[in-house]
Amino acid sequence: MDGNFAVGLDFGTESARAVLVSLENGQEIADHVVVYQHGVINEKLPYSDVRLGPDWALQHPDDYIGFIKVSILEIVRKSGVSPEKIVGIGVGFTSCTMLPVDDSNTPLCLNPKFAEDPNSWVKLWKHHAAQKAANKLNHIASERKEPFLHKYGGKISSEWMIPKILQIHEESRDIYEAADRFVEAGDWVVSMMTGNYMKSSCAAGYKALWNKGKYPSNEFFKALDPDLEKLTETKLRGEIHPLGTKAGELTEELAADIGLPVGTAVAVSIIDAHASVPAMGITGPGKMVMAMGTSICHLVLGEEEVDVEGISGVVEDGIIPGFYGYEAGQPAGGDIFAWYLNNSVPKYVEEAANLEDLSLHDWLEREAAILKPGESGLLALDWWNGNRTTLVDAELSGLLVGMSLDTKPEEIYRALLESLAFGTRKVIDTFEQNGILIEELYACGGLPNKNSLLMQIFADITNRTIKIADTSQTPAIGAAMYGAVAAGKEKGGFDNIEEAAEKMKRIKDEYITPIAANVEAYEKIYEHFNDLYNYFGKDSKVMKSLLSLRTESKIWH
Amino acid sequence: MDGNFAVGLDFGTESARAVLVSLENGQEIADHVVVYQHGVINEKLPYSDVRLGPDWALQHPDDYIGFIKVSILEIVRKSGVSPEKIVGIGVGFTSCTMLPVDDSNTPLCLNPKFAEDPNSWVKLWKHHAAQKAANKLNHIASERKEPFLHKYGGKISSEWMIPKILQIHEESRDIYEAADRFVEAGDWVVSMMTGNYMKSSCAAGYKALWNKGKYPSNEFFKALDPDLEKLTETKLRGEIHPLGTKAGELTEELAADIGLPVGTAVAVSIIDAHASVPAMGITGPGKMVMAMGTSICHLVLGEEEVDVEGISGVVEDGIIPGFYGYEAGQPAGGDIFAWYLNNSVPKYVEEAANLEDLSLHDWLEREAAILKPGESGLLALDWWNGNRTTLVDAELSGLLVGMSLDTKPEEIYRALLESLAFGTRKVIDTFEQNGILIEELYACGGLPNKNSLLMQIFADITNRTIKIADTSQTPAIGAAMYGAVAAGKEKGGFDNIEEAAEKMKRIKDEYITPIAANVEAYEKIYEHFNDLYNYFGKDSKVMKSLLSLRTESKIWH
Repeated sequence: MDGNFAVGLDFGTESARAVLVSLENGQEIADHVVVYQHGVINEKLPYSDVRLGPDWALQHPDDYIGFIKVSILEIVRKSGVSPEKIVGIGVGFTSCTMLPVDDSNTPLCLNPKFAEDPNSWVKLWKHHAAQKAANKLNHIASERKEPFLHKYGGKISSEWMIPKILQIHEESRDIYEAADRFVEAGDWVVSMMTGNYMKSSCAAGYKALWNKGKYPSNEFFKALDPDLEKLTETKLRGEIHPLGTKAGELTEELAADIGLPVGTAVAVSIIDAHASVPAMGITGPGKMVMAMGTSICHLVLGEEEVDVEGISGVVEDGIIPGFYGYEAGQPAGGDIFAWYLNNSVPKYVEEAANLEDLSLHDWLEREAAILKPGESGLLALDWWNGNRTTLVDAELSGLLVGMSLDTKPEEIYRALLESLAFGTRKVIDTFEQNGILIEELYACGGLPNKNSLLMQIFADITNRTIKIADTSQTPAIGAAMYGAVAAGKEKGGFDNIEEAAEKMKRIKDEYITPIAANVEAYEKIYEHFNDLYNYFGKDSKVMKSLLSLRTESKIWH
Repeated sequence: MDGNFAVGLDFGTESARAVLVSLENGQEIADHVVVYQHGVINEKLPYSDVRLGPDWALQHPDDYIGFIKVSILEIVRKSGVSPEKIVGIGVGFTSCTMLPVDDSNTPLCLNPKFAEDPNSWVKLWKHHAAQKAANKLNHIASERKEPFLHKYGGKISSEWMIPKILQIHEESRDIYEAADRFVEAGDWVVSMMTGNYMKSSCAAGYKALWNKGKYPSNEFFKALDPDLEKLTETKLRGEIHPLGTKAGELTEELAADIGLPVGTAVAVSIIDAHASVPAMGITGPGKMVMAMGTSICHLVLGEEEVDVEGISGVVEDGIIPGFYGYEAGQPAGGDIFAWYLNNSVPKYVEEAANLEDLSLHDWLEREAAILKPGESGLLALDWWNGNRTTLVDAELSGLLVGMSLDTKPEEIYRALLESLAFGTRKVIDTFEQNGILIEELYACGGLPNKNSLLMQIFADITNRTIKIADTSQTPAIGAAMYGAVAAGKEKGGFDNIEEAAEKMKRIKDEYITPIAANVEAYEKIYEHFNDLYNYFGKDSKVMKSLLSLRTESKIWH
């Protein structure tokens, strides 16, 4: 094989994946997946009887290090590529996944003194037990009219860094005191690989309230708790670097372990979804990436910073250096179809699908594809897991309207597909109303390849061409691109991410284009989607009241 | 067996039933069901290749006569009751089921000259192919501000007498010309049994726009079509009599055929659902009967005539002589559960139910019964088949709101049960706002006995005691009561329906009473039901627009 290579590491929720990527064309030469030995820790601590509360989700840091050692060796072996041709390594990581470490950079959970306290462990992105802390933070930030709030859609998620630190402080003062730093797991992995602490602008910007070189003020942190006044200068300290920065080179010890040269460059870490943007060849404005899996994440670049209603965040240099990276989202994507397939598919459909040796999804998709826009008479709001952009409201819920005694399962299925596209259309419209133009869509993640009807519906409802990744590994490939940029052209990599993206982008040749008649038909239905969106999202209290009655009645139980 | 007996005949949609009833206590002594040989004729005419349009639903008049001959013989034989002790016969019939007859009272469809024209046949109540005629009638009546409109909720149904006649006139002028009369099938059956044409106030009042002794004016009919100017004096002629009137006595020929004495009294006919009112012992105001089957029909008596929004009709002497009979309704009842069971029950529920040898309904009902009010977080509008009372709008559709990724099938099932009870609560509130008080509910029909959770939910949501029929044959028993009244006390029957109802009423000893905590919880949810009711029923055009887009797209197909 010609040319040089880079390694992309993609640390996910249940597993991690290493991919060896060609710098000539972005092709995956070899990959290796390790399912985390300890998985998502949400019932009890490892090697212990300590049980966890309902919203806890932890990981074990040994799983990360174990993965690195095994998988890089493995992809080099499988590929037959000479190690000298591997110029750099990039790290993509779920975020905010964070941990407290001591002054030797050792996770506190590995210290027997702290190991039985859940707060010493790695808090995974989807750990939701910091909600009380998040509520406190939002309340105080909003009372103080903190300017950072509007950059994050007006509400800070319990998934993010500061609520997670605050939870540790409130519940386990000794852990808080013993922590030399609280670190993003992506940054920690990079520091373990290089010996250098080089924090990434991506995670800091999207998840730790860092903006234009600054965190919120010490006064704000003091208002949270006097102990926290100097948090950002102490336990959150460390310079923050743009993506593509070389964090350092592999340590001698690790280089020996994994069989790569000592000088191999490692890039600062990047949030996994965000790495998909360069992987799809996008290094400038006008194109929106949709990372479509259980949920949908929208990423778009802008030349200026503007306020957009209900986005997840806007971060300078957050995705591509030189641009403001905007993130928006729909909190349920494939999750809604999974819910439907598990809870609402009748026996006769099961039997029909079995007879034809089709999956339920394939059968329903085929039948739904026969329908024209509007033919089902159904319309849904995609709020099964709340709404992120534009309403930032986790207390909203799903809605389906238009049922008759003739309504068929494939009609409901299609209405659910359509609801996601209407939700994305709303995100696009909101960006455009604020001057962030979106001309084309780029879809990656688990959904696009198995859901051609879904993608056509997205094209028809948004009236935009959709380009689709020709790999399901965009996060790893984007990370590898940044690994090659960290190495630099002199060492066989690239000078900047634009060059890397141009050479290595991974897009299918065939685009999905809107069908004019469908665009027109959906335009009318979208008006009604907007009516329902405004009524249930803004005017009516029905969804919130139903949720609070639900919560009350669960307490009685 | 002591005492005397009466026969109740109940002519339904797929079959007819004869019941021999004790005048001592209303018990069924014997019954016999005949499934109509020709069934519901909705594909092609019998003995012919003439195919029917999509909304046609016809019956064969021979099926009625055949049933009478076989079934009365059969119940007398089965019971061992001496024929002399059978004092009267009452006829309950679906309505408006109508047919054209010639001047010898022979149905035109039995004349080979007309038999190949579908318009010569009996149009069953659920024949909906007269919608165009109904639209014309509604348009003209509304333009002329006809005072009868508001007695029928502002809109005349395509199921009723005048639209069905108008369809015949517009499509088959020769049938219209050849018809000596257009007759309610119930009245026709009575005329065939007695030789007398004695029309019933019940069908004429609820289905043929007859009110306080008068039909709409000749001017109105002339506006419909000049040919129809004198319709009510000619082809709709005939005196109209209160319920309980003796239409006549069995003809000699029929008496001989069925083994009853020649003098046996036959009452004027009654609409099947309406016969349930005396069968449950109700002969005065304050009590509402809910005939609960595929749809729900509400019947209540008033001492005065008042306007109630969206009722099906109010008819003097329409149910019990001396009272105004009010009818309201929900167009889908058990139909919604059937839809859910057929289209939305997942495999794991099927398997769990099979393992325990339970029906899907029984399994779901058991699981739904564990939930508290509000616990599902779901709320539904019961409009899968449109809304009758109070909105009179067939273009409304079903709605379900509150879904999360945790929503379970039994939660949806319970929300559907609740939606019917909320719909009935709305009917009750509307009656009471107009001065028709409703203190107790009486449930009959197919649903109450198999759905104890449903009945408890009805009690909780309406905050009213519910008494339940201890028979599924209330229409036949009510008809038999009127047969006994037609005979009169002198002949071993009763002087009036009050006496008959007092002795023969059929109510279970155990009542269903509201549970205070549930009443309170549902009161809050009912507010939201009303919000959705008003938004989707009045303010928003979403449901109608979705339906019209659906209709359009079906046309393209």
